[in-house]
Formats: sequence, structure tokens, C-alpha cells
Amino acid sequence: MRIDKQAITDFFTDLQDHICQALEITDGTGTFHEDRWERAEGGGGRTRIIQQGGVIEKGGVLFSAVHGPASEAVLKQMKATQPTDFYATGVSIVLHPHSPMVPIIHMNVRYFELSTGECWFGGGIDLTPHYVDAEDARWFHAQLKTACDRHDPAYYPQYKTWADDYFFIRHRAETRGIGGIFFDYLRPGDDDHKAALFAFVQEVGNSFAPIYTHFMQKNRDLPFGKREKKWQMLRRGRYVEFNLVWDRGTKFGLETNGRTESILMSMPPQANWVYDYQPEAGSREAETLQWLKKGVNWV
Amino acid sequence: MRIDKQAITDFFTDLQDHICQALEITDGTGTFHEDRWERAEGGGGRTRIIQQGGVIEKGGVLFSAVHGPASEAVLKQMKATQPTDFYATGVSIVLHPHSPMVPIIHMNVRYFELSTGECWFGGGIDLTPHYVDAEDARWFHAQLKTACDRHDPAYYPQYKTWADDYFFIRHRAETRGIGGIFFDYLRPGDDDHKAALFAFVQEVGNSFAPIYTHFMQKNRDLPFGKREKKWQMLRRGRYVEFNLVWDRGTKFGLETNGRTESILMSMPPQANWVYDYQPEAGSREAETLQWLKKGVNWV
Repeated sequence: MRIDKQAITDFFTDLQDHICQALEITDGTGTFHEDRWERAEGGGGRTRIIQQGGVIEKGGVLFSAVHGPASEAVLKQMKATQPTDFYATGVSIVLHPHSPMVPIIHMNVRYFELSTGECWFGGGIDLTPHYVDAEDARWFHAQLKTACDRHDPAYYPQYKTWADDYFFIRHRAETRGIGGIFFDYLRPGDDDHKAALFAFVQEVGNSFAPIYTHFMQKNRDLPFGKREKKWQMLRRGRYVEFNLVWDRGTKFGLETNGRTESILMSMPPQANWVYDYQPEAGSREAETLQWLKKGVNWV
Repeated sequence: MRIDKQAITDFFTDLQDHICQALEITDGTGTFHEDRWERAEGGGGRTRIIQQGGVIEKGGVLFSAVHGPASEAVLKQMKATQPTDFYATGVSIVLHPHSPMVPIIHMNVRYFELSTGECWFGGGIDLTPHYVDAEDARWFHAQLKTACDRHDPAYYPQYKTWADDYFFIRHRAETRGIGGIFFDYLRPGDDDHKAALFAFVQEVGNSFAPIYTHFMQKNRDLPFGKREKKWQMLRRGRYVEFNLVWDRGTKFGLETNGRTESILMSMPPQANWVYDYQPEAGSREAETLQWLKKGVNWV
């Protein structure tokens, strides 16, 4: 079976639809606002934003498929050795909930192709709870492990470690959250391999809605107060720091004249900074910080 | 007259003291909290932070003097061609006021020296009003021009243009604020030249307190409401974007294991993001955006 870029693009288009639908149903009151945009050099996207929903305070579910001559920055990013055209498509999600008891989530699935014939898949899902709950974290990683194991038992350990390394705020020496999976440059060796990789990427994409709606439903009514809101704003500050300082996709987009409002949909509605904030020893906030390190074996 | 690094360091130490004193007097209720820190490889600093003052909501006035073997990143940043020791000292300031009618300000003066004998000065001041007031902007630039003109009439036009280019949020195609002056790699040709450059840097440093206390006093009691606070939070979001994505000093510090809490003292106490926010045509917010471009000739 030969998988061409149209089939992949169609899957991503549908995935955006399905995820938005599932999120709207679970959110209850929020709806996605869509901006369609075109890229002067070729292609475009559908940016869908939800703001002030019942559970989600601000978030985006983005689809794009862009193509054209690869710029020098694109060539460098794609590790290409000579001028070529490129085609890139994917779905990117970041959701910031109102409640500090509901985690922030991020998902991305993507596909790149060069006119030389070279192509690869990438993606990942990671969870950023404002308060780490070990049971929730175990459940989240178990979902990802199950999804990975259906394709290759080597995937989960490898991509879990990659996520630990990628979603790491170096200047804070802490992980962004409890990680998840991250993978990139999955290059098919032949058509069958490409179909297998695509099936894996489909599985990752399809796992998103069940995972996040589970947390929305389970945690939306948990009680919280001013203290938890204050902590949430500080954790969102860290999310901003990771995305603007370290996230490759964000940096690449902003430096190569991408659509700024789409790229920065990942910014929270509000973030706070307090100089040298140290949570009280033994508090739930301090406990959360202790989980934010690489190499925690959740499953 | 020979200016050595000790004389420059002493000036910066005193400058930090004088500025903190002037800000505390004008603020009325805020006081600076000092953290002294040491760098494992040599040197250290005095980080002074003010939070929840009468006028200033959050800000820092930092002094540091660090030295040791130059890392590869330092050598690259310093454009050095061979391994060497370095000495770097300076004062850095960012102040975020409570009131959206009082501008955010930033100042930096710095001196670098390599053990090869090479040395240079750098620095700048720039103002980021949440609402641009043309009269305030003219006054601010006139102060800088007067300070520059005392040393060289070529300085102001040159360093004003440099500030326009430096304090530019590329992914928004807008300047951070109304600019100011920026200069770097001012290398003395001989001892007299070094004394002259140091005198200029002293003038810039000494101009800070009179300039900012003027705005604190003049604008602190101007009326504002929810609308202005909302706009202030969005403008602070842009400040975060500039500092984390484009500011060379911030990036360099975070990537080279600098003291994170000192570097990120520039973060506002709170910042907000709204997807694709467009102020109403003809509003003061829209008017402010129109001023945020390069090449405005204020004086």
C-alpha cells in the first residue's frame, strides 16, 4: 500500500475536525472559532481557537499544509543538502484549562516531504499538570504505552525518554510537566514501512481526544481556591518560558516568518512571575516540583 | 588618565546604589530586596528586586561582575578568536509599574574585557509606554539626545537607530516601545578614548534615575480603569515575547547557565494573551500600535 501526501493531509484534516468536535462536546459551552489562512509561497491552514469555554480557558487546534521552495532555514531544519521544494502538514494542539486541577496538554503530529523524495514523520503528546497527581500520571503514560505497544514495543521507552529530553526547561533544570512521548525524523525505508509509520502517527493522533476528555471530565469539578490559581499562573509562566526559549517549532516558526497568531496560540491566557518563588517545604506545590525531572518511570 | 576595570566596577556598584535609593524615595513604599550571589567560575553579583511597591509592581536593579575562563559561547558572543579569560561587569534594570499610564523602562550599561587586553563598552535605555504619549516620548528622547550630545553629536542619531533595530519584535513587525538608545562594542583606541567612552557610559547610567522618577511622579496619579489594565497585560505579553525570543542578553544568559532568577527579573508580574487581539480603530490602543515602528523622529 502506498501512502501519499494527500492521504496524510486528509487524515490530519479529519483529525482536526474530530478533535474539535470531541472537545466542544466535553467542554459544554466553548466553541472553536476558525481562521483560514493562506501562505504567499504556497498552502495554508485552518487555525481553530477556543477561548472562555466551560473547561478550556484558551487553546488551539491547528491544521496546516504548506509547501513551496524550501528556504535556507527550512533546508537547515530539514537537514537537506541541496535546494528543493518541501511539503509539510500537521496538527498542533495546546489547551489551557480554567481549573488548576485540570492539566495543560500539548499534541503534535506532522509529516514532511522533500521533492527529492525524502520524507519523515514526527510528533508527540505531553501533559503539564499544575499539580502532579501520581495516579493521573500513571494513567496518562499507560495510555501512551498501550498506543505505542500496538506498533512496536520499542517505541514507548524510546519516545518517552525523548520527551523527557525535549520538554525540558534547561534554565530551570526542570521538565515542563510529566512528559509523554516525542519522536521525529521517522524515515520510512519502503512503502510498507511508510504505511506502518503512518498507522502509528494515526494512533497517536486518535489517542488525543480520549485522553484529554478523560481529564476534563474527571478533574473539572475538583475544588480549588486562590492558592491553586496563584500556583497555576506561575506554572503557566514556566510554560511560556519553555515555548519561547526552547521549543524548536516555536522558534523556527517565529524566525521564518510563520503566522505569528497561530504559532503563539500556545501562550496561556494569563501567566505570572514572582521573583525566586519557593513553595513551602512539604506542600503540594513543592511535591509537584519534585516530580518535574527526567527519568521518572510512570508505568 | 588610565581607566582600569576596578574603576568601572566601582562606578557600576555605586550606580546601583544611587538608582535604588532614588527609586525607593520616589516609589514611597517599595524597598529593594537584595540577593548576593557568587559564580562558581569567578565573580558574582547583587540582584536587587522590588515587588509590590507604591508605583513599581515588579522590577530589578542588578549589578554583576563576573570573570574566569571564557567558555566557547562567551568567546563566540565576544567575537574572540582564541581561548582567553574574560571580565564582565554591568548594571541592568527593568521596571514594571502598577499603572498602565506609567511606562515600562529598561537600562543596561556594561563593560567587557578579555585577558588579551581587548575591551569594550555597551549599553542602552529604552522606554515601553503601554500608551504612547507623543509629548512624553519627545521629552524622553530629548533627555537622551542631550546626554549623547555632551559627548559626541554623532552618538544620538546612530544609537537611536540602533535601538530601533535592536528593540524590534520581528515576529510582530513592531518595536517593543518608543526605543531610546542602544550601543555595543565601543572599543577604545587608546587611554584617552577609553576615558571618553567611560564618561559617556557614566552619563547614560546617571541619566536613568532622573528620567524614570520624572515619569513615576508625573504619571502615577493619572486615572485608568479596567480597559487600560487589560491593555497593559497584553503589552506586557509582548514584552515577554521580545525578551524570551529576541533579546540577545537574555538568550545568552539562559543558554550559558547564568543565574536564571536574575536574568528573568525582566519578566512582568502578570502578562496576558488573547488570540489575534485587534484594538478598535481610532482608539488610544490602536494609536499606540501605530507609533510602534522604526524610524520615528521624536526630537
